[in-house]
Amino acid sequence: MASRMSEHTARAILSIASEPGDEKLGALIGEHGANQALEMIQSGQVSGAVVKRVREVMESKALEHSMNRLASCGGRFIIPSDDEWPALLDDLDTSAPVGLWLKGTANLKVVTEKSLAVVGARASTSYGERVASEVGALAGQAGVCVVSGAAYGIDAAAHRGALATEGYTIAVLACGVDVAYPAAHAGLLTRISESGLVVSEAPPQAKPHKRRFLVRNRLIATLAQSTVVIEAALRSGSLSTANWANALGRDVWGIPGPVTSATSAGVHAGIRDGVMNIVSEISDVIARFNTELDLKNDLHDPLQNCVLKIIQETGATTETLILKINQARDVIVDSHEIHSVLAILELRGLIERTATGWRCR
Amino acid sequence: MASRMSEHTARAILSIASEPGDEKLGALIGEHGANQALEMIQSGQVSGAVVKRVREVMESKALEHSMNRLASCGGRFIIPSDDEWPALLDDLDTSAPVGLWLKGTANLKVVTEKSLAVVGARASTSYGERVASEVGALAGQAGVCVVSGAAYGIDAAAHRGALATEGYTIAVLACGVDVAYPAAHAGLLTRISESGLVVSEAPPQAKPHKRRFLVRNRLIATLAQSTVVIEAALRSGSLSTANWANALGRDVWGIPGPVTSATSAGVHAGIRDGVMNIVSEISDVIARFNTELDLKNDLHDPLQNCVLKIIQETGATTETLILKINQARDVIVDSHEIHSVLAILELRGLIERTATGWRCR
Repeated sequence: MASRMSEHTARAILSIASEPGDEKLGALIGEHGANQALEMIQSGQVSGAVVKRVREVMESKALEHSMNRLASCGGRFIIPSDDEWPALLDDLDTSAPVGLWLKGTANLKVVTEKSLAVVGARASTSYGERVASEVGALAGQAGVCVVSGAAYGIDAAAHRGALATEGYTIAVLACGVDVAYPAAHAGLLTRISESGLVVSEAPPQAKPHKRRFLVRNRLIATLAQSTVVIEAALRSGSLSTANWANALGRDVWGIPGPVTSATSAGVHAGIRDGVMNIVSEISDVIARFNTELDLKNDLHDPLQNCVLKIIQETGATTETLILKINQARDVIVDSHEIHSVLAILELRGLIERTATGWRCR
Repeated sequence: MASRMSEHTARAILSIASEPGDEKLGALIGEHGANQALEMIQSGQVSGAVVKRVREVMESKALEHSMNRLASCGGRFIIPSDDEWPALLDDLDTSAPVGLWLKGTANLKVVTEKSLAVVGARASTSYGERVASEVGALAGQAGVCVVSGAAYGIDAAAHRGALATEGYTIAVLACGVDVAYPAAHAGLLTRISESGLVVSEAPPQAKPHKRRFLVRNRLIATLAQSTVVIEAALRSGSLSTANWANALGRDVWGIPGPVTSATSAGVHAGIRDGVMNIVSEISDVIARFNTELDLKNDLHDPLQNCVLKIIQETGATTETLILKINQARDVIVDSHEIHSVLAILELRGLIERTATGWRCR
């Protein structure tokens, strides 16, 4: 029966039944195709944990259940023969995903044509978050998609920087695309899927666990032409992403921080060991894409306009700006958004930093 | 007459009459010896600005005057045939100093057997000064001499870190060893000469000027096995020291800082361009000397004891510590000294950093 299944259905079953990164399964599919691989597993021609899991899936309503969940969150399941499948994933060879579960409005192949993975510490410092937000904003402005993991700290700041500049961003999760993890980022994940994509190798409702995070990291590295690490302690998971990117021959960048900061120690070690190139100017990370910084010159943007006006009138520290903007516009603006606007205005040469804040040029 | 002069006298005259780094003069001395070189210059067998300057020196009391000044500040003039002349200087070939004017109690050859040049921004940040002070303290503890330029900022912090741990330190000046430059560092220079050395290629009373600073930088790099750069803006003079050290085949280290700090941009560029190795742990700079960190285990040191007691009792931020120590000991202690003591106690494993300050382990 399996041989009459569509390639999509066969891969969905295998995706549900296997753990991401199963190279033995990848090799089997590579040799025989997903349909025949599934048949061989069912008929006991191969061994391993996947045999029992496939039978469980086939004998249960797991597939139907996953597809219903996917439909109810407006998601889709894509496989290598789909137009949307990015060629970048072929670099993973036998450890490439069996299929990808997606939720969101962007086209994965299109947005990853210029994409930058931004990874780093969950327990980040305000310095790291500020830099991540600027990197995200610069990427967004330059039409480079920000790929990250939606975790606390650096990940979230990078996604937010991209969103604030209306850039594309992709959250690659270790759980199902319908699971908000961390729960506090449910709103962020919704915003990401509204303009970008939430991506996972695991089926809907899958829970995150440790192995999945490590395997997820390789997917983040694979879905981007370059990876930049902003704050990572020694033995941080972000370094696994950097190592994956390096092994795939992608550009890997490390943003330095104070030598006294344990949160930057992994980045410094990576630079020392030649895994990463040091970033001496944040914009260098974007310049690699050989793209003109496509800076918006839209002074009708109300927030940009408001920020510029306040700086013109009085000069201001970032903290004062946030206060004044919230007074002036009678809405609460996320400080990440302000940082992004400041980064854009700075790049456009309209404002410059002072010892204490900002002034017009 | 010149041929009957001592080699010392001939070189002193040439040192007074020439500008440091005069390669043509260096080649002449290399070929004929200082005595005959002086005779050739006097008799007009060579050309150049040095001819007029040598005549002026010979016809005036400049030599006597310099020697009197040197004697009155307790200094000495050394030349390559002296026991105290370090072999390190031979690496400069024809641009090696004609002689060196020294003031201080240390033996130049002995202290530069293990020596680390610490250079960086005059307009440093508190972060950079803290790191420089720690590097100086670690070097002092490890018996590695700190070579620097006695300038504001990084230089002064490095010297002070070494002095606070009773380590050797050398200030290489662009002016005479009897000139306090900058004037605000007169006290620091006195402290340096009391246990270490103040060194110059220029004779007593020489004023510093721009060219002399650049030539002085090469001497700093030459007098150390390794050079570490802590904070340097793009096009900073410290980078010339790093380039000299690199050209001489010495180890060159760069200590990273925030990518957003213009004061670290020159260091990051140097690391990117392969001029410097990134420092991921401050102690790595010292470990290069293959020396056991010869940490003092002297709990009779009253300041160490006092700092440890306060941390044991209450835990403390560095700022609180400084306040409490000054209350407890009824003396004003330099914050650099506290930083050095903290670095030593940390290295000895007696205290550790917390998010806000320090605690006992």
